[in-house]
Amino acid sequence: MTLIALDVMSGDLGAQECVPAALLALESDVSLRLKLVGQARVIAPLLEAVALAPGVRDRLELIEASEIITMSDAPREAIRRKKQSSMRIAADLVHDGLAAGMVSAGNTGALTAISHFVLKCLPEVERAPIMTSIPNRRAFTQLLDVGANLRATPVQLRQFAIMGAIVARDVHGHERPRVGLLNIGEEETKGHDLVQEAHALLKDFKPVDWKKSGDQAIFDYVGFVEGQDIFSGDIDVVVTDGFTGNVALKTMEGVAGLIGDRLKREFTADLPSKLAGMAARPVLKRVSASLDPRRFNGAIMVGLKHIVVKSHGSADRYAMAQAIAIAATAVRKRLVQHVSQALGSGDHSTC
Amino acid sequence: MTLIALDVMSGDLGAQECVPAALLALESDVSLRLKLVGQARVIAPLLEAVALAPGVRDRLELIEASEIITMSDAPREAIRRKKQSSMRIAADLVHDGLAAGMVSAGNTGALTAISHFVLKCLPEVERAPIMTSIPNRRAFTQLLDVGANLRATPVQLRQFAIMGAIVARDVHGHERPRVGLLNIGEEETKGHDLVQEAHALLKDFKPVDWKKSGDQAIFDYVGFVEGQDIFSGDIDVVVTDGFTGNVALKTMEGVAGLIGDRLKREFTADLPSKLAGMAARPVLKRVSASLDPRRFNGAIMVGLKHIVVKSHGSADRYAMAQAIAIAATAVRKRLVQHVSQALGSGDHSTC
Repeated sequence: MTLIALDVMSGDLGAQECVPAALLALESDVSLRLKLVGQARVIAPLLEAVALAPGVRDRLELIEASEIITMSDAPREAIRRKKQSSMRIAADLVHDGLAAGMVSAGNTGALTAISHFVLKCLPEVERAPIMTSIPNRRAFTQLLDVGANLRATPVQLRQFAIMGAIVARDVHGHERPRVGLLNIGEEETKGHDLVQEAHALLKDFKPVDWKKSGDQAIFDYVGFVEGQDIFSGDIDVVVTDGFTGNVALKTMEGVAGLIGDRLKREFTADLPSKLAGMAARPVLKRVSASLDPRRFNGAIMVGLKHIVVKSHGSADRYAMAQAIAIAATAVRKRLVQHVSQALGSGDHSTC
Repeated sequence: MTLIALDVMSGDLGAQECVPAALLALESDVSLRLKLVGQARVIAPLLEAVALAPGVRDRLELIEASEIITMSDAPREAIRRKKQSSMRIAADLVHDGLAAGMVSAGNTGALTAISHFVLKCLPEVERAPIMTSIPNRRAFTQLLDVGANLRATPVQLRQFAIMGAIVARDVHGHERPRVGLLNIGEEETKGHDLVQEAHALLKDFKPVDWKKSGDQAIFDYVGFVEGQDIFSGDIDVVVTDGFTGNVALKTMEGVAGLIGDRLKREFTADLPSKLAGMAARPVLKRVSASLDPRRFNGAIMVGLKHIVVKSHGSADRYAMAQAIAIAATAVRKRLVQHVSQALGSGDHSTC
């Protein structure tokens, strides 16, 4: 059994979507147990409203948490003042060994702060980045950091690269992932001092420095990559700081929305376009489904002593169920141990 | 007559596309004169190969420049060692009053360095950002900086906001543009110290501080915006540093390419899809044309004492002709004077 704590009160849609998500996840994974953390008076009616599949109720437990961290709570205040929040209590459960990992769709800054404060980084890790899957021309690119650490030092960017490679290998099956450092050009002369220094660290990085067994590199560092390379399919892991990564992620969503909007507008512009739209609908639906962010919701905060998965704030039940599945997979793959091993002989932490 | 110097040797495609672009621009704008700066032995055969429309040859002059700045030249080296390059000589012509503005598709770092070194910022401006048009749900959003200054201080970000508003008003016809500061969330608590400080400066910014006549604000500062807001149509000017802006810009291109690729793949997957694709082709072409980056090529480097327009490195002749038209418009609109007036009573320069 894999036991995950779910913060059901956070996110734009809160318990209304998180509770059904929990049921979807439990129904599709019989080795999963969930602790639903939140206000029982909100959660109980939502559970009562649905007919639970057999065996689901037994794998479900309610944990009362009276407070909610909102999107406008500052991270420090969230730690200091909201000790009874669903996010904090979910983290406490993981810390106390009562759950193997947690999932939250809440305030990214608060989740980052609470994860670092309660669950701690691995001794080898300075800061834990958030890593998410982005569709590319072949499959998926892993992008990190997408918002946990707004700034990152060169040493931290190197750690992000190593951790990203481990997740890409263990969770996404890339045997020797190709890792690139996000910059404004591919040429070695491009970029500010921070990416230049990170590049120098990664270029000179010998496998023997950080992988204890064998001399096989865990990843291939391909050097600088640009925004468009996230989607080419030639790069498996793209490394950047959390500010840039978050802007890139939200820009992607914006462009996809704009193109969807233009397609809708043009396919309804006049009668011939509407007829063409009817003929094209099955094809457009396939394209839309293949890029549907709900399919790859669930960003791992990697480098902590436990598994924390961040769901998109506006995730619906299907997207949220996907994030729960990611957390379960990460626990089962022993991701924390593998990251710790990979970084074993590396730098030491200040987390 | 508006006289523009065109660096025809730079960019991924060089004179092969820049020379035809010059002819297209001259044919469509009878008040335009161009100085083609580059290697005469390369340019002359390209001119001889085409039948020039009447009156075009007279508005065209060749200026010899023996060197070329490549994409891998470091900005400092470009200034120090390539004084005979087409980019440098184009800037020198503008400096010497022999052209009113210049256009180049070359190395952004080198163009930024040469523009600042040869043409200088306005006395009120610290650093000149590059500003480009991005399609949104209604029309276009102006995004700056997309790559001139990899870092920006809060004061510089405030200057970017003012300059962006002036370009949006004068060149793009937004009477009182809505200006937002790019961040990882809209809430006031979000973001690192740099965006927090810039936000404080912009929030407290009174029109009387920087606009000499009247008490009408030139723009409305709407606060923090996120990546997806670039495309909503609700924001006219989005302000960020050159690193983040460049990553956002290239990410957009990547997403658009990915979606185009998926559409192509699905519309050729089987016979019914192919038939649907034939029916949908005119509609898809309209969507594609409405988002074609060639239509809005030409990013203004704003805040200099003269007009400099950066074309996309891979611009073809049509895109390059559009960049030339932008430069001519900026000169005719007296953009430099208006920016100088708007910043008139503001901060002083270190450029």
